[in-house]
Amino acid sequence: MNLILLFKDDFKKNSNKVRLTDRRFLHVKEILKAKETDELTVGLLDGKIGKGIITSINNDSVELEVILNQDPIEKLPLNLILALPRPIVLKRLIPAITSMGVKNIVLLNTNRVEKSYWNSPVLSASNMADLTYLGLEQAEDTIAPKVFFRQQFKPFVEDELPGFIKGTKAFVAHPYSKNKCPSNCKQEITLLVGPEGGLIDYEIKMLEDVGFKTFNMGKRILRVETAVIALISKLS
Amino acid sequence: MNLILLFKDDFKKNSNKVRLTDRRFLHVKEILKAKETDELTVGLLDGKIGKGIITSINNDSVELEVILNQDPIEKLPLNLILALPRPIVLKRLIPAITSMGVKNIVLLNTNRVEKSYWNSPVLSASNMADLTYLGLEQAEDTIAPKVFFRQQFKPFVEDELPGFIKGTKAFVAHPYSKNKCPSNCKQEITLLVGPEGGLIDYEIKMLEDVGFKTFNMGKRILRVETAVIALISKLS
Repeated sequence: MNLILLFKDDFKKNSNKVRLTDRRFLHVKEILKAKETDELTVGLLDGKIGKGIITSINNDSVELEVILNQDPIEKLPLNLILALPRPIVLKRLIPAITSMGVKNIVLLNTNRVEKSYWNSPVLSASNMADLTYLGLEQAEDTIAPKVFFRQQFKPFVEDELPGFIKGTKAFVAHPYSKNKCPSNCKQEITLLVGPEGGLIDYEIKMLEDVGFKTFNMGKRILRVETAVIALISKLS
Repeated sequence: MNLILLFKDDFKKNSNKVRLTDRRFLHVKEILKAKETDELTVGLLDGKIGKGIITSINNDSVELEVILNQDPIEKLPLNLILALPRPIVLKRLIPAITSMGVKNIVLLNTNRVEKSYWNSPVLSASNMADLTYLGLEQAEDTIAPKVFFRQQFKPFVEDELPGFIKGTKAFVAHPYSKNKCPSNCKQEITLLVGPEGGLIDYEIKMLEDVGFKTFNMGKRILRVETAVIALISKLS
């Protein structure tokens, strides 16, 4: 937690004072071992970044006087469409890709996505939000990526995807592609990464039809969590 | 496990037959649900890759007839020197960076490495070897990276590092550097990544003195495990 993420509800009415009692308080107390008058980096969710000066700290809570005066860091010009991975993988990936600054995340159903993954409690709106907050706290960011769930591949690709990728370069990782992995793209990117078992030909064809370019990642087969981080870094 | 990694001891004397009873057998039986005459991708540790044809499978073991006729995939021309991270992070990172093809891994002590990490059982030679095997099995590789432990920063940097980085471009990630992260290097690379708290000025100075160039990773602070994968991918 390199930044303490604040929410509008944390503030006392019409003031710049916040009182924290949850895991953020525990972090300030036990990890940072902070004391009165210490300054901490704070940021308001979807808002500015600044300093919080500790005005009091005891065994239950910490109170901060907050000055928010800096714009948040820029997001990465990259949108990720990811075949829904195993919930335990998703739990690690969402904070990681949030910390890297991905703007939009679409979790997509594809032919080889294990259907039971869609029933995981990890996918609840509040769990997903919490996972993005971990990434924001790590990267000193305040702008949460938007996370979308799409369980119907065909209508998503046909009806939504053309609008979604408009103005971006759209790439899909595909082991059988002859194209090398692009790197250092100057333009905004949409990156689609399939499931562990790969996309099926029909899915690749549909994506190509709406404007996606395929590329291969070389001969090494990486786990999804390694591949996603490696690709985001390579492309952007 | 995209490749079943074999060891010399697996082979029956003077034959091309192996009998597996351990987790590799369980993988063949329970995950792959393979049966007699099925062909599996196999590889000999530090040797060639090929096919294993199942000659018998029961509740205790699987027997394969093995043909090794392909050279292993090329390693990434990259050596990683990593300040020893938390053992739990190391446990995830070693398979990941092995799967990416890193040639040599040096785990290094630096000023801000938590000293207790050096006592972790994860660091035993057999545990480290097993972690690299997971990465090889993932990436269909057979050449394990060499893993070195160096607990003395100064003698390592002064006495060993000049030889180690010879013929490579040597980079160290440093938040205060003015240089942008290099990408797509054509030459062999040595990448040094410091601990969560960063390297101290004295350490950066020593590294620069033996020929390392610093670069920054941008404004986002990433977790070591994310940063290492992202950097390996970006640089190579």
